[in-house]
Amino acid sequence: MKILYGILVLFFLGIVINGYADNNSIAPSHGIVYPGGWKNWATIAVSHRNDNNTLRVILGNDVAVNAARSGNTNPWPDGAILGKVVWKDTQLKDWDEATVPGDFVHAEFMFKNSEKYFETYGWGWARWIGLKQKPFEKGMQVCIDCHTPVKNRDWVFTDPALLPK
Amino acid sequence: MKILYGILVLFFLGIVINGYADNNSIAPSHGIVYPGGWKNWATIAVSHRNDNNTLRVILGNDVAVNAARSGNTNPWPDGAILGKVVWKDTQLKDWDEATVPGDFVHAEFMFKNSEKYFETYGWGWARWIGLKQKPFEKGMQVCIDCHTPVKNRDWVFTDPALLPK
Repeated sequence: MKILYGILVLFFLGIVINGYADNNSIAPSHGIVYPGGWKNWATIAVSHRNDNNTLRVILGNDVAVNAARSGNTNPWPDGAILGKVVWKDTQLKDWDEATVPGDFVHAEFMFKNSEKYFETYGWGWARWIGLKQKPFEKGMQVCIDCHTPVKNRDWVFTDPALLPK
Repeated sequence: MKILYGILVLFFLGIVINGYADNNSIAPSHGIVYPGGWKNWATIAVSHRNDNNTLRVILGNDVAVNAARSGNTNPWPDGAILGKVVWKDTQLKDWDEATVPGDFVHAEFMFKNSEKYFETYGWGWARWIGLKQKPFEKGMQVCIDCHTPVKNRDWVFTDPALLPK
């Protein structure tokens, strides 16, 4: 019993360390702490942009994924974090008609908290650039401007991709 | 202490139930059991195909994700499962130059087991079609034929997308 308990404690410590280890060395963006562990978040959608030749995956924390899968996205619930991971769109050498991720561009995030971020439409907007994850510090308004076409969709472009039940 | 133990047991039961609940109702493909829980797997890459107008995300189980992130992919280790989730490429209405997932096409998987699947190049090949996840039963050779251009890459098209450490 004590051994089992010890194993469980180590397991939880493992989760905590795995989730937050990368928090320590990366500076905040717009005052928002880096969301450690995002690389293990589940997929909500993908996208392809021809205007800037990028491929993207849209990930979510547990709150966001649960909201996406239950259709609870306008508005998204407080606590939801959406992450968009962006790569340059690059020819796949083994299949002529396919493109795949090339250079890593940035990872950007929307943090839903309708009270804390009331002045920025209920979302905290943050971005970390390049493989070194340098914080973007040009102000949330840069993000908001681009998302204005979807202000009636709680400022989110992404429709959760259809998935089997 | 007893309460903590009870909470932990419930937590583990939750993991098990969450992971395998959707196994029960979906038939095997090529004799391979449906890999329940794949919707929560982490992302390894994305891709875009112009020949059949699809967008894809490539997911992996823990063994595959660890292999991808440590560069241990030629060969992939036994136990790795790669999943490719495929949607029709569809115009995003709120951004002219972007496409996003439309209809769900299928989810297909490669299961690495160099002994069990020795005759099919170390991989078990399976696919489940449509939102109802109807098993594909036309034979693994259909999959293998298409993957032949990458037989020197352990039969895998995907290069893990670059990610921050």
